[in-house]
Amino acid sequence: MKRHDIQLDSDGRLRHFLTIEGLKRDILTDILDTAENFATVGEQNVKKVPLLRGKTIVNLFFEPSTRTRTTFELAAKRLSADVLNININTSSTSKGESLLDMLHNLEAMHCDMFVVRHNQSGAAHFIAGHVAPHISVINAGDGSHAHPTQGMLDVFTIRRHKKDFTKLRVAIVGDILHSRVARSEIHALNILGVPEIRVIAPKTLIPSHAENLGVHVYHDMNEGLRDVDVVMMLRLQRERMQGAFLPSEEEYFRSYGLSREKLKLAKPDAIVMHPGPINRGVEIESSVADGPQSVILEQVTHGIAIRMAIMSMVLGRNPGGEIKEAV
Amino acid sequence: MKRHDIQLDSDGRLRHFLTIEGLKRDILTDILDTAENFATVGEQNVKKVPLLRGKTIVNLFFEPSTRTRTTFELAAKRLSADVLNININTSSTSKGESLLDMLHNLEAMHCDMFVVRHNQSGAAHFIAGHVAPHISVINAGDGSHAHPTQGMLDVFTIRRHKKDFTKLRVAIVGDILHSRVARSEIHALNILGVPEIRVIAPKTLIPSHAENLGVHVYHDMNEGLRDVDVVMMLRLQRERMQGAFLPSEEEYFRSYGLSREKLKLAKPDAIVMHPGPINRGVEIESSVADGPQSVILEQVTHGIAIRMAIMSMVLGRNPGGEIKEAV
Amino acid sequence: MKRHDIQLDSDGRLRHFLTIEGLKRDILTDILDTAENFATVGEQNVKKVPLLRGKTIVNLFFEPSTRTRTTFELAAKRLSADVLNININTSSTSKGESLLDMLHNLEAMHCDMFVVRHNQSGAAHFIAGHVAPHISVINAGDGSHAHPTQGMLDVFTIRRHKKDFTKLRVAIVGDILHSRVARSEIHALNILGVPEIRVIAPKTLIPSHAENLGVHVYHDMNEGLRDVDVVMMLRLQRERMQGAFLPSEEEYFRSYGLSREKLKLAKPDAIVMHPGPINRGVEIESSVADGPQSVILEQVTHGIAIRMAIMSMVLGRNPGGEIKEAV
Repeated sequence: MKRHDIQLDSDGRLRHFLTIEGLKRDILTDILDTAENFATVGEQNVKKVPLLRGKTIVNLFFEPSTRTRTTFELAAKRLSADVLNININTSSTSKGESLLDMLHNLEAMHCDMFVVRHNQSGAAHFIAGHVAPHISVINAGDGSHAHPTQGMLDVFTIRRHKKDFTKLRVAIVGDILHSRVARSEIHALNILGVPEIRVIAPKTLIPSHAENLGVHVYHDMNEGLRDVDVVMMLRLQRERMQGAFLPSEEEYFRSYGLSREKLKLAKPDAIVMHPGPINRGVEIESSVADGPQSVILEQVTHGIAIRMAIMSMVLGRNPGGEIKEAV
Repeated sequence: MKRHDIQLDSDGRLRHFLTIEGLKRDILTDILDTAENFATVGEQNVKKVPLLRGKTIVNLFFEPSTRTRTTFELAAKRLSADVLNININTSSTSKGESLLDMLHNLEAMHCDMFVVRHNQSGAAHFIAGHVAPHISVINAGDGSHAHPTQGMLDVFTIRRHKKDFTKLRVAIVGDILHSRVARSEIHALNILGVPEIRVIAPKTLIPSHAENLGVHVYHDMNEGLRDVDVVMMLRLQRERMQGAFLPSEEEYFRSYGLSREKLKLAKPDAIVMHPGPINRGVEIESSVADGPQSVILEQVTHGIAIRMAIMSMVLGRNPGGEIKEAV
Repeated sequence: MKRHDIQLDSDGRLRHFLTIEGLKRDILTDILDTAENFATVGEQNVKKVPLLRGKTIVNLFFEPSTRTRTTFELAAKRLSADVLNININTSSTSKGESLLDMLHNLEAMHCDMFVVRHNQSGAAHFIAGHVAPHISVINAGDGSHAHPTQGMLDVFTIRRHKKDFTKLRVAIVGDILHSRVARSEIHALNILGVPEIRVIAPKTLIPSHAENLGVHVYHDMNEGLRDVDVVMMLRLQRERMQGAFLPSEEEYFRSYGLSREKLKLAKPDAIVMHPGPINRGVEIESSVADGPQSVILEQVTHGIAIRMAIMSMVLGRNPGGEIKEAV
């Protein structure tokens, strides 16, 4: 099943943004280049461009996330779009309206884009498969499947620091098994030509057949971190502790938390990343999170630029052209 | 008591929009004509007109309704107004502030319009009776009394398909007794000169003295649907099942649900309407709701145009003039 | 500890607005003069000025308050800023994110201003002490400490009616002990040179050493109201009744509620103020609240102008110059 084909229009341009998996390198590069143009908008005195004026963007959040919703809302507003926030728990789906009926209603109101967050893998694809031709869908995180805008902002941040993807050694540390962020990061890094991607985690948090993802599996941080250019830490979902996955926070930190000591194993100019929010002292030591090698807050800044880039590309359908001029 | 007189200003122009009852035909026609101008805004690349720039519109929802709130919010934003959403459960009325004090405070902040949704009949009238001269009130549904913007979008949809109201036979099917939608539809159809309005429902869901509303009462769909031009289905409030009103969903559907079979009794070019959200398989079969005669999603689209028309008319107070020019 | 110094930038201009305490008279006068310019914006046909276009203002409400949030949201929108409402209960702090991490994330998104409401005294100062140089913080009420925009709108209202602060006798009546409003009012009145400030309350609702605040303490309204120019009533927090502070609402009204009879003790042209929401019949009689001497709704109107003034001053950092021109 080629789930990703649905993302492109008949001219091969990005119509939806659901997953990084299966996208061509030039599309990812287009996104990164477009985001470069937006990266300076946030620093301007007037942080707005009129690209999506009169467009209506709907944040359809089936899973609450103030943080992610905020980044999309800001990106949309800085593109001058109108934004509707719809929290599905309180909506008329409680009146027994089906999801598809709700979508078709929003379409009939001439909304242009659905930003979808859902706790079930595949939800954004499902929605994209059922919307009218004028609608674009952006996946803002679906279950443990994908969080592609996070993946893109991560590689954007790497490119700003490391320039050439084809010479990098990258380690992703933590709960690979349940992480939609890790999955999107791995796809992006592979497509962009990173030659060595390592995942570091206890056996219980590594998907079976992980090697098929194009990664090298490590269970020991002291081995896995050696000489890497980039350390991408994952957030530990604390609820995993309740299950049989992990012994205790303390023991997790000893084995898989990033301390200054362990960071020394990486290259001296290695950067440290984390998608946030951070569990300080669980997966990362505060002195590292706030230290000179951390680019964690840059990731947040870049998140706005990446989302502006993707939103304007799918709605403007001009990845290389007018948008860059207009900015 | 002439409750509707409060709706007009001293020049006879629409100031509030609380109920269709008692309005003159030319005012309804003005609304429909103005909405025609807005109907194309939603299809433009930039879906905004600057008519209400700098105006402040407050959605005062005492009864939660994401769906209705969304349509008013979109209409207001496409008119370039600023929108405040106030959910009264979480507001300072919980601090013991009286409703009137809250209204007067919002007035003092120079808000221009209150869009009111309330589960008590008469709430919007009560509020309109107490606001300052510069404020307009729109009824977004009050108890079982009225939902006049819904009524107007319904007749707008009918006019687009059937042109001449004075030659139509219209059937409204379902819970007439509790439906503010039905009440507003009946008033609109009567004022616009529809010669034959039928209501079809079991006896327990028909108001006593229904004939005084200017309708013909049917208890049998097979009789009531015969040769009608328009079938307006109502949403069945499922909580009615708990009371003594109705036996079961299955039995209701058999007697009063709209199936393809029953629809054949209507004229071949009859249109099927529903205010949404739909209970598929309860009051309407999916094949009919999604079928070629259904205009249900058009109603949603027209709802934006009608609300833009009414909002701009009451705030601009120029039903026939400048607004049309400006669009 | 000079908590207030943090409010000024190196040029002595207002950067944050956390408390009135310690500010110089000319800064308060600048705020009042700037607000005069905005006071007419609300009456214009287009109630917007483009001063803060492209700025992002975040309402960070750790304590729910629709009323106060609404005034800040309106002020920000009328300055053409983009507004984000973040209710902290539902945000990712529930995911265990620390407050500071959340702030740093919002900073990284290039937000420009945090409007902070918190039930703990000192919260806004704490936040102001930890934000990046480009961020301004406005205190929208912290515990029982300060509510400085309320204090400023109150003196703005007084100045509009009484012109010269240096000839006034002002009485503040009610729960002085727990009131952040009273504290901010007292500081503002003192700084602006009001020669006689009286506080009137039962002993249980007066802070110890109240005289150090520069006020005269009265326990008897009949004495305290005599010949005052301004009567500022405070809202009675009804939960005080449960504690040992107060006997009953009826008895409180008899002793400290403002009736027409008691108001006669003040000067004939005295004005009556209340920060809202009013407990009618508890701290103030309806006939007084709605009477000819009441300026309570004017206070609400002025609240928008004062907040526009402060927001534009801290973000524009041009208290006397360009803002006035632009309006």
